[in-house]
Parts: sequence; C-alpha cells; structure tokens
Amino acid sequence: MKRNVLIIGAGGVAQVVAHKCAQNNDRLGELHIASRTVSKCEAIIASVHEKNAMKQDGVFKAHEVDGMDTDAVAALIKETGCQIVINVGSPFVNMTVLQACIDTGAAYIDTAIHEDPRKICETPPWYGNYEWKRREACAEAGVTAILGAGFDPGMVNAFARFAVDEFMDEVKSIDIVDINAGDHGKYFSTNFDPEINFREFTGTVYSWQEGEWQENKMFEVGREWDLPVVGKQKAYMSGHDEVHSLAANYPHADVRFWMGFGDHYINVFTVLQNLGLLSEQPVTTAEGLEVVPLKVVKAVLPDPSSLAPNYTGKTCIGDLVKGVKDGEEVEVFVYNVADHKDAYNEVGSQGISYTAGVPPVAFAMLIADGTYDGGTMVNVEELDPKPLFGLLDDIGLPTRVKDDKGDRAWHEA
Amino acid sequence: MKRNVLIIGAGGVAQVVAHKCAQNNDRLGELHIASRTVSKCEAIIASVHEKNAMKQDGVFKAHEVDGMDTDAVAALIKETGCQIVINVGSPFVNMTVLQACIDTGAAYIDTAIHEDPRKICETPPWYGNYEWKRREACAEAGVTAILGAGFDPGMVNAFARFAVDEFMDEVKSIDIVDINAGDHGKYFSTNFDPEINFREFTGTVYSWQEGEWQENKMFEVGREWDLPVVGKQKAYMSGHDEVHSLAANYPHADVRFWMGFGDHYINVFTVLQNLGLLSEQPVTTAEGLEVVPLKVVKAVLPDPSSLAPNYTGKTCIGDLVKGVKDGEEVEVFVYNVADHKDAYNEVGSQGISYTAGVPPVAFAMLIADGTYDGGTMVNVEELDPKPLFGLLDDIGLPTRVKDDKGDRAWHEA
Repeated sequence: MKRNVLIIGAGGVAQVVAHKCAQNNDRLGELHIASRTVSKCEAIIASVHEKNAMKQDGVFKAHEVDGMDTDAVAALIKETGCQIVINVGSPFVNMTVLQACIDTGAAYIDTAIHEDPRKICETPPWYGNYEWKRREACAEAGVTAILGAGFDPGMVNAFARFAVDEFMDEVKSIDIVDINAGDHGKYFSTNFDPEINFREFTGTVYSWQEGEWQENKMFEVGREWDLPVVGKQKAYMSGHDEVHSLAANYPHADVRFWMGFGDHYINVFTVLQNLGLLSEQPVTTAEGLEVVPLKVVKAVLPDPSSLAPNYTGKTCIGDLVKGVKDGEEVEVFVYNVADHKDAYNEVGSQGISYTAGVPPVAFAMLIADGTYDGGTMVNVEELDPKPLFGLLDDIGLPTRVKDDKGDRAWHEA
Repeated sequence: MKRNVLIIGAGGVAQVVAHKCAQNNDRLGELHIASRTVSKCEAIIASVHEKNAMKQDGVFKAHEVDGMDTDAVAALIKETGCQIVINVGSPFVNMTVLQACIDTGAAYIDTAIHEDPRKICETPPWYGNYEWKRREACAEAGVTAILGAGFDPGMVNAFARFAVDEFMDEVKSIDIVDINAGDHGKYFSTNFDPEINFREFTGTVYSWQEGEWQENKMFEVGREWDLPVVGKQKAYMSGHDEVHSLAANYPHADVRFWMGFGDHYINVFTVLQNLGLLSEQPVTTAEGLEVVPLKVVKAVLPDPSSLAPNYTGKTCIGDLVKGVKDGEEVEVFVYNVADHKDAYNEVGSQGISYTAGVPPVAFAMLIADGTYDGGTMVNVEELDPKPLFGLLDDIGLPTRVKDDKGDRAWHEA
C-alpha cells in the first residue's frame, strides 16, 4: 500500500493526470503537483476544483521545483510524504527525478524516454542509454519504477503482451499504429510540445526487424491502414520509445511503430526540416543573437493545450500482432478509440493528452494497491496487463480486440 | 560635372555597384565604400582588384559608417570629397543617408523605398510616406536625388516612359513583369536579403487600377505570361515600389507589378507565412528569449551571395505597356534579359544582384557628366530614358522592344 502522489510537470498531460488523480483520490491519498512555474500548477488545481473532480475532500497542493535538481525533488517528496511520483515533465528531467525516487524510496512512473536536449535520436535501444542503467539501483533500493507508462509507450506495450499471451504460442511481429483522425481547426499544430514532437521525426527511424535494428528516414516507409472507427489512414514508420523495450522483450518478433500523418503535416514538416528550422543546434542572426530555430518554431505554433476546446474527432491507437497458434498463423488487433470532445468535457484537455495522461494514473492506482508495486524497474510489457485493462475500462480508456472472430471488449476475448 | 562616389552598403548589390564603378572610374573619379562592417567593404574591394576591374589607377577605399547616423554619413561625404552617393544599404537607412546628402550637397541615388523596420507595407503611395516629403528640401538645396534607380524599380520606370513617349498618344496600362528563370540548385533561397524579400510579400498587394488603389493578397491574382527567352511563366500580382511613382506620374493608366514564382517557392512561403515565421514582430521562446522570427528564417537560409557560383539561367524583366496611337490600340513590351552565369563571370554576383546594381552606376555616370544632374528629387520615369538606355547598352543591360513589328533593340524602334 502506497499513498500520496506527486505529479511533476504542468503541461497538457499533467492536466489530465491531475484530474484523474483527483477523481480517484480515495485510492491515491494526498495530491501534489510541481513544476518550474508554480502558476501553471495552480491553474491546473483550479481547473480540477472547477470541475469538482476531487472524489472526496483532500489535499491538492502546488509547488515550485526544478526537475533537473535531484535534491530539490527528493526534498519535496519527503516534505509532502509522497510515495508515488508521476513524472510528466519534460523528457529532459527523467533521470534526475528517477534518482530522487531512488534516494527516497518513492515509486516512479514516467511516460517517455529520457532525452538529452543537445542530442536527437541516440543509438538504440534508447532505454539502454539512460533508464536501464539504473535498474540495479532500483532493485537494490526496492524502488518500483514503471517506464513509459502513457499510451504509446504504455498501453500499446500492454496490448502487445496481451495479444501474445492470449492468442499465440509464438509472436512474429508487433506493429503499433497511432492514428489521430481529429481536427483542431488550426492551419498547423502539433498535439504536444512541438519541440518534443519534432525531435521524434528529425532523426533516424529505428525499427527492429529480423533480429536487428533497421534504419530508415522519416516518411520513407508509408502504408495505408484500415482501422476501427477511423477507417483508412496513411501512417509512416517512425521512431518511438516502445520499439526499444518490446524489441528487448520480444527479440524474435519484428517490432515497428507507425504514426499517421496527413499530406499537409508532411508538407509543413518537410519545409521546416529542409530549411533547417527544426534544428536543435543554435544559429546566429545577423544581429548576433544566438537562437535555437526549433525553439522559435515552438514559440510561433499554437500551444497544444489551446487546441482542446475546438478539437473534434477520434483517435485510434493499437497493436497489430501476428504470430502462430497451434501451428496456424494468427493475427489480432488490440486497440483503444478515444474522442477529443469527450476528453475536453471530462478533463479540459484534447484526446492526445487524455490518452497519454490517464494510463499513468491507472499505474499509480495499481502501485497504490500493491498490484504493480514490485520494487524493481520495469517496462509495461513486463507486467500482467489484465489489472490495467480492467481499471482503464472503468476510468476512461477501454481496450478492445479485433480479429477474425470479430470486434469486442478485451475481457470477452 | 560631379566626381567621386561613395557607395553605402556591402551586400550583393553593393558588390555589383563597386565593380561597375571601378570599370568606369575614369568617369566617376575616386571610389569609396562604407558599411557597418568594414571587413565586408574590404572584401568587395579585394574582389574588384582580383578581377582587375579598375579601368584606370585610382582610389578605392573602405570605411566603417552607421547608415542610420546622418552626421556620420555627412562627415564621411565631406572627408572623402564625394559628390555622388549610391545608397545600396538596407532600406532602413534611406532617409538618414538622403539627409546627409541634403546637408552636404552630394547627389543621392537609391534603389528601393525607405522602410521602417517595425512596419510592413505602409499605406500608398509608398514614396509619399518618406522620400517625397524631402522633395522641397532637395530643390532648395539644389540636391539631385534619383529614387528607385535599380532595375525594378528603376529600369522598368524608364521602360514605361519610353513606351509611352515613343509608341502612344495615350497610355492605358503598365504591367511590369519580373521573371527569374534561373536555377540556384538549393532547396530554397531568396535572391536577395530574405528579410527584405519576404517583407515585400507579407503585406497587402497594392495596385493602381481605374484611378484608385486596389488591395489584394499575395498570390491571390496569378497569370501566365509568355516572354522572350524565358518562355511561359506564371507570375503573381505583387506590391512593388515603382507602382507607387508610376501611378502618380501616369494616373490615368492601370499600373500593376507581377513577380514570377514557382509552386515550390509559393509552398515554402505559404507555410512560413501561415506559421507566423515571417513576422517582423518579436515572439518570446519558452526560455524567455525575445526574437524576431523573420530574422531566424534569414539566419537559416542560404546567404544570397553564396548562390552566385552555381547560378544558371536567365532573367527577363520588362513592361507590357498598352495604349492608343492615332486612335488605334497598341501594345509594346520593353525589356531586358540577363544571364546569371555571365553576371558571375563579370562581377562575381548572380543575375538578380547584377540587374539591381548596374543601373545605379549608370545613373551616377549620368549625374557625373551633368545629363541627369537636375538639382531636384525625381523618380526615374521623370528623366529622359534614352541616355540611360544608351549607356546601359554599353555597360551590360541592353534594352529591347517587342511588339507586332518584331523583337529588336530599343534604338531600332
């Protein structure tokens, strides 16, 4: 039994995490949220109270903390008595926040790999460059750390585990497909921090095929998918966190990630990329000002959280898993469909933030009740997915299964 | 008789001006070039000597001066004994340099309207906002000032005057068409300072039609033209300096400017424009750095002067002028074709800089010999074009005429 949650970060995903924690504070205890800008934390808490989201009376406090400062985060964990940390701050702070958890014994949850702001697309496996180096330290300290516990990575890792466990003796391939068929009505916007979003696509596309890392360029390999609810959609092989842990856990399967993009997104991205405006390396203006082009692009793009009120349509994210069962080839698509407008009505955020922010709260609840509190560092596919799916059916992200026997809820599979 | 030339500015056009002045220093006297960065002036002088461009032994000196500082420019004019100033610096310094000429009695030549860096696309007529307010001061001081004395504005104003004087009793319309059919081999580049280039296209497109200013958006009105040498080319109605003086001097004619753009240029421009990256207004990055997006775009784009060595193909810039002669409708196209490679071989610059930089030297020579030294402020169409055409036939930009009688040199018309 662990109690009291510290949320690190105050962006769009943190907003969802805060609302979901509040809706379940009977199981989570006292709530705290901290970022460099305390006013953002306060705004999130205000929106929680505005929606009367607290299930029962309880603490929800805002704090100012620099996530890059391990000692400051550790001090805050101790001061607040939090036993669970949900890190949804920038991916640049993972390692410092994780260390603070190791130092204090708190459980750690994040939703994306650690990144060095000066580097783009490091060598695979990505988790091996940072997080997995702390595995032993977690085990020695008995610290539970669940890595990549959002939707993708996160739920899609659990989808893969579920498909393999339930439907096959041997897995051949795992294709994760992420389609956002929503419409935000802007000329162009990323759905989360543009800096992080573009960083995903400016480097090498790593996939795990035939037992080794394959390299492609972004938008080099595209394919049309026909998915539940959202229909036919073009998606491109992209680099993504979960490929790097699934490849380690299912080394005999091909593991690929496919992200849906419209022609307009690709055109804007291509122009910016070719001009050098997505570079994380500083340039100097004629006036002598040193500036990182990507940060200027971020400054002119819409704030992703501003998209929520007018966002309509649905997302479909799932895993097409192929394998062999009793000597026969089988395939199954495990997936979730989320709705942008429903997400906004419930927690004031758009669907992309919603799908990323709800799962870490489910993980926190399953650490709180001991189900997932193993005292070691794991990626999501190393956990039994059924408790997670059962809880998420109740709190907003139901899992479905589609194969030649039809389209149905996971528990009817 | 005026002697000794001070060139203000050290960009691509200044390079051409410097070479052409050197090639004609027997008529121009001592040469001086000044900008904020004296090393750029020195590099230009070095390139002049490298090509042995000085027609006869003589002075060519580099100076450091801030074009925004009238007193400093006036002091330099006096110190160097220059009686002619060719201002090819940034369009932000026109008014201060002009004032220095009024203060010292030197003749003034520029190639583009004055601009306030904080404003884009002021109300028409553009010359009325700044330059024409100093007309009386020029007349009182007996100062010759020739405004917009490059190619467009500049030669195209003379083309219009020539067409009207030679071929018609009454002018109905003047359509200036600027086609660059060259290829620089880069993904994207502007042909001159990106900041100035984009500023031309982000505001309202003003044209003079049916006796009043018409407003359109950039790329709203497009039309295919079939021109000598470059063939069929799409051009779009754009805002441009010469429309504003020609409309004043030929108020009964429609005056429009058309700039050629490929689909790729339009796509890149449209993406940058819609994202807000062409804004001259500062934005603030997440890190708190205040930065003007347009200056960052400029910083990532190729330096236009770097295009010259690999630039191939030709430009065609001319005026289609329609009117009535002896009761019959007539039309004539007065134009010049320039070659990027020839320009590079002669003066180390690409064709766009060449066409902009050669005419002001011709004007300087015609001021020097008294032909155009009228002691007042004029736009180019207020001068007899024939001395100009005759001189430019000799120094690199021959004028041609095409109508139903054929395609021929202007003096055969």
